[in-house]
Amino acid sequence: MYHPLKTLSEQEINIAKDVISASHPNVVIFFREIYLEEPAKAELIPYLELEHNGKLSPTTPRLQRLATCQYDVMGSDRVPEFHEAVVDVEKKQRIKHIVVGKEHHATLTMEEFEIFINTCQASSKYKEAVAEFNLPEGFDIVIEPWPYGGRDRTTDDSRYIQGLIFAQDTRSGNPDSNFYGYPLPIIPVMDYHKREIVRIDRLATGGKGDGLTQESWRGNIVDHCSQSEYIPELLPNGTRKDLKALNVLQPDGPSFKVTDESLIEWQKWRFRVGFNPREGATIHDVCYDGRSVFYRLSISEMTVPYADARYPFHRKQAFDFGDGGAGNFANNLSLGCDCLGVIKYFDGVATDSEGKPKVVPNVVCLHEQDNGIGWKHTNWRTGRAVVTRSRELVVQFIITLANYEYIFAYKFDQAGGISVESRATGIVSVVNIDPGKQSDYGNVVGNGVLAQNHQHIFCIRIDPAVDGHKNTVYVEESHAVPMNETTNPEGNFYQIRKTPVEQSSWFDAAPEHNRIIKMVNTNKTNPISGNPVGYKFTPMATQLLLADKQSIQAHRAQFAQHHVWVTKYRDGELYAGGRYTLQSQHEIGGVSDAVKRGEAVKDDDVVVWSVFGITHNPRVEDWPVMPVESFQLNIRPSDFFTENPALDVPSNKNLSSQLVVASDCCSKPTQ
Amino acid sequence: MYHPLKTLSEQEINIAKDVISASHPNVVIFFREIYLEEPAKAELIPYLELEHNGKLSPTTPRLQRLATCQYDVMGSDRVPEFHEAVVDVEKKQRIKHIVVGKEHHATLTMEEFEIFINTCQASSKYKEAVAEFNLPEGFDIVIEPWPYGGRDRTTDDSRYIQGLIFAQDTRSGNPDSNFYGYPLPIIPVMDYHKREIVRIDRLATGGKGDGLTQESWRGNIVDHCSQSEYIPELLPNGTRKDLKALNVLQPDGPSFKVTDESLIEWQKWRFRVGFNPREGATIHDVCYDGRSVFYRLSISEMTVPYADARYPFHRKQAFDFGDGGAGNFANNLSLGCDCLGVIKYFDGVATDSEGKPKVVPNVVCLHEQDNGIGWKHTNWRTGRAVVTRSRELVVQFIITLANYEYIFAYKFDQAGGISVESRATGIVSVVNIDPGKQSDYGNVVGNGVLAQNHQHIFCIRIDPAVDGHKNTVYVEESHAVPMNETTNPEGNFYQIRKTPVEQSSWFDAAPEHNRIIKMVNTNKTNPISGNPVGYKFTPMATQLLLADKQSIQAHRAQFAQHHVWVTKYRDGELYAGGRYTLQSQHEIGGVSDAVKRGEAVKDDDVVVWSVFGITHNPRVEDWPVMPVESFQLNIRPSDFFTENPALDVPSNKNLSSQLVVASDCCSKPTQ
Repeated sequence: MYHPLKTLSEQEINIAKDVISASHPNVVIFFREIYLEEPAKAELIPYLELEHNGKLSPTTPRLQRLATCQYDVMGSDRVPEFHEAVVDVEKKQRIKHIVVGKEHHATLTMEEFEIFINTCQASSKYKEAVAEFNLPEGFDIVIEPWPYGGRDRTTDDSRYIQGLIFAQDTRSGNPDSNFYGYPLPIIPVMDYHKREIVRIDRLATGGKGDGLTQESWRGNIVDHCSQSEYIPELLPNGTRKDLKALNVLQPDGPSFKVTDESLIEWQKWRFRVGFNPREGATIHDVCYDGRSVFYRLSISEMTVPYADARYPFHRKQAFDFGDGGAGNFANNLSLGCDCLGVIKYFDGVATDSEGKPKVVPNVVCLHEQDNGIGWKHTNWRTGRAVVTRSRELVVQFIITLANYEYIFAYKFDQAGGISVESRATGIVSVVNIDPGKQSDYGNVVGNGVLAQNHQHIFCIRIDPAVDGHKNTVYVEESHAVPMNETTNPEGNFYQIRKTPVEQSSWFDAAPEHNRIIKMVNTNKTNPISGNPVGYKFTPMATQLLLADKQSIQAHRAQFAQHHVWVTKYRDGELYAGGRYTLQSQHEIGGVSDAVKRGEAVKDDDVVVWSVFGITHNPRVEDWPVMPVESFQLNIRPSDFFTENPALDVPSNKNLSSQLVVASDCCSKPTQ
Repeated sequence: MYHPLKTLSEQEINIAKDVISASHPNVVIFFREIYLEEPAKAELIPYLELEHNGKLSPTTPRLQRLATCQYDVMGSDRVPEFHEAVVDVEKKQRIKHIVVGKEHHATLTMEEFEIFINTCQASSKYKEAVAEFNLPEGFDIVIEPWPYGGRDRTTDDSRYIQGLIFAQDTRSGNPDSNFYGYPLPIIPVMDYHKREIVRIDRLATGGKGDGLTQESWRGNIVDHCSQSEYIPELLPNGTRKDLKALNVLQPDGPSFKVTDESLIEWQKWRFRVGFNPREGATIHDVCYDGRSVFYRLSISEMTVPYADARYPFHRKQAFDFGDGGAGNFANNLSLGCDCLGVIKYFDGVATDSEGKPKVVPNVVCLHEQDNGIGWKHTNWRTGRAVVTRSRELVVQFIITLANYEYIFAYKFDQAGGISVESRATGIVSVVNIDPGKQSDYGNVVGNGVLAQNHQHIFCIRIDPAVDGHKNTVYVEESHAVPMNETTNPEGNFYQIRKTPVEQSSWFDAAPEHNRIIKMVNTNKTNPISGNPVGYKFTPMATQLLLADKQSIQAHRAQFAQHHVWVTKYRDGELYAGGRYTLQSQHEIGGVSDAVKRGEAVKDDDVVVWSVFGITHNPRVEDWPVMPVESFQLNIRPSDFFTENPALDVPSNKNLSSQLVVASDCCSKPTQ
């Protein structure tokens, strides 16, 4: 069935590709992405309202089906020109087209990674550099392409790719032997336009007191690095044997319904799931019990700046969504290891460099999970306890960016809440360090292996539609009040201060004032409390970007410098760090620019961006693969409902739970 | 088998009772608590070391088995004297004895609640006050005893109990019909010594602008309050029907072992669980893979101050552990509704007012749960993904204090981490408000029902034993460094600052500096990183006590005014808010006094106290029972291990997970 929010089908991608190809006869086109251009909000809202009211019919006018197409047109000088176009796939017409300025760079693709690796391997500069390490027999080289983070002081508008270089112990014959344990202190730099390795940056391998420019080590890597395997069959002592099965069974099937490919209904929630190359899974048109709550939820951007002061580590600053694309690098989630219970998978459709669509299986999963007690009360007079479990519905996707993974989940609960969770795991980024040294720039997590200090700063984009699209953001705080006879005779009173946000602005977390952000509809009053209906969240008080305000890292990531941004909605304004982050010198078109417009946002179509993260100074325990580090943004109703929405969750006993059998686990009690 | 940390048996309690009774011939004794006096640390450590090294034998000298006994001796003037004694239950001797000063008050008991209710019902003052409300037929009165929080300006050293009064609609015949929806604006106050209702405090029922002293409403409560049921059979529309079963099955039994009644072993962890009337479940002698980590973990205290400025609501300030006792008010956890999976329950032993022991079944439960992905990495070159689930072991207890519940859990994970979780649920404390009004003191959550603003501030006590008992606490922060040619040429560097705590002190959370608290053993070096082995946590940046520093609320809860307290260990110094909190005027013998001793704590036996909480300005969604509000303190290894301790967790596929069947949940895809 047609729906304006459905991702493009393979057929639609093929049409878009053909339209673009036909628009550029006689040149070579290198396709990057083709994905749904979501309808303008002004057009989509009336359609969604018809849908909500059950008034869609075969004669309802369709919205245009539009495809955003990003591609390089290869010039005769072999320097590609980056184009963006929008194609109406039903009319088969290109309706918008621009040549993107050379100062902007498209998101990296897997094909470019392959080009980089091949270019390294063919480069004499690279081969000479690698040869200096005299790798012993049985060791191979692994090239790890990395975004060229932020233009260097010496570089220009050309497109660059850099790489981290590792040695891999191949003696086990296992292609997954962990090469990150053998970092080589060079970074080859490719000029992508020239398809040429233009420079080998040498990395210092010194420690405390060795300064910024200490010459790097070039000896045999095996002398001071060592195996650091994580693949079970390569673990010296194998895996632990005493963990018994814990199975989640749903004998009656899941409680959710998925219809029309992308429409999910569960426990009074109703929403659509989308998927695109940049943001991964997105959530649209979220309603609870027929009432609109959010127009769109997404993970907008993240940045990972590294804090090693030595050249050229300031270039280690990934924008994983803008530089690589969360959708592009989404894992194929396979049954039974990424989730438990009854799981529904969603496929994505990617595009190759020829513009051909390719189904990418199982990029998003949907399942339910138990999250412990949901609410409980015991009447101590009668002993009657009523206790409900909290069930969650989880829309999850996982991305791998070189060494690192992120697990993202939108979690819906039965009490009207939505949480956006991010779990960081994978392999911390490491460089070589001389034996026996410690560093100001990170922690030695393995022999010869320095895990550099870094930050991960995420931005969640919240487009509220709390009982409608005109919403107002309030900053609400709780303040102490000095003891005084008139208003606070005993000193126990504190005051709640609510301030509406009049125009686009930023705010920081203020836990000392219990600062919360409320998104309310001032045109609808909660009949019980008399307050406007709303949703709220507490901005997470995590450390913001530490890089100096004048550094390239800070210029590029304005969004990472405040916890909350409030902007006036604009079609297409989705990316906190700007549309083009790769090699950016400044955040252009991101939230900081949106706020600068100074637009009125009260009782208007407002967007709220929540920024949080972690300063990750690695522990030895983070090596060789780190245990997940979790963050969760909790968005909760606040006088949206007239009672606890989970009040009607059944409190049945779970009859499958069991008492332990003494022989299983317990010695006979002695008394 | 004998173990010095085992809770007292019924037999031991009987001995203690008999010894106390024999010490006070010819008087009436009202017993309050009899529980294990834990051994002095200096005596226990050598015993535990023998145990760790497998050197305990039948000839190992036993430590004394001691019982703390708290009781009132009833004087001839009927004024009870509060005594504390320690009895050696093997020698059958009282070895310590004090008469507690009259300015201190013992923890409340259930028997006292009954006395309060009976005294109200017999009081003409009370009966006259209640009669003024002209309750309609079918309504009864419910009396809810409350701690008399903080001495009033007009009261003395006598023992008081106050009560909140509600009407209950009995027409359904259901004794669990929710009476909290009908609050009556009076608080009877009992002088416990006189067994007399000495005063009926009138509560104002006004709203904004009505001032502090507005006379209270006395009409028919049914006119402006309404039913607010949470018991499933009383819900007007019943419970939702579309939630399908989610079962946790452990076909091979649990992975944990419980031996010797209280010794728990699981996934390289080994510890003892204790239980006492004040703190509920406590955790002792925590080792991982044979290495000592913590000597003792406990939830030490909490305070719940209310912010309604009107008399006498400053007296609504509960110290749930000191005033009532988390162990005393622990729920009987019943199978299949409080936990899923295979569950082991532990019983407690309580004491009645005659000193007789009574087994309280199922006060603590132990089970495993899945907590999502534990770690994951995909090699994008080969497509090989290794993913492990994170299994947790949960030691849980739940307490009900009048209207409110707290769910406390110690959660052990496979990566060497321990989290202490608190979930707040139950029924928010409410008072009557005139129809149609709003209030500065809370939110109207039901008709005629004002839920007052309040805070919940918890304190977790951490007694570290990181590879031994001499530990040092470091405050570690990450600081921006201005761009400069010498140390930070690109501006991306930030500096980690580590400061040892030299003497007992407090600290606040400082997320802007990524402040973390590390408990390290400077005598043991991590062989990989060269850093001392340690454990760390990030103090949670939650709002501290808002009450004016000169208020009685603030005087009583010094502990709630800083996020972290670091003190030198002293036997018996377990309670952040002091040993006696009921009717306290100041925090005496709590963490603030311990810090004032100014003792050296570097490389010494140090204790760390973590304070966090919530400013709870109720939502309509919190009524009539609130969805859980969760907090979690995460204590994590930091260079304690030489690699990720969860590296050897098996990554087997879970074969019980299932793909959704289309007919279950999904329409046929259209393409």
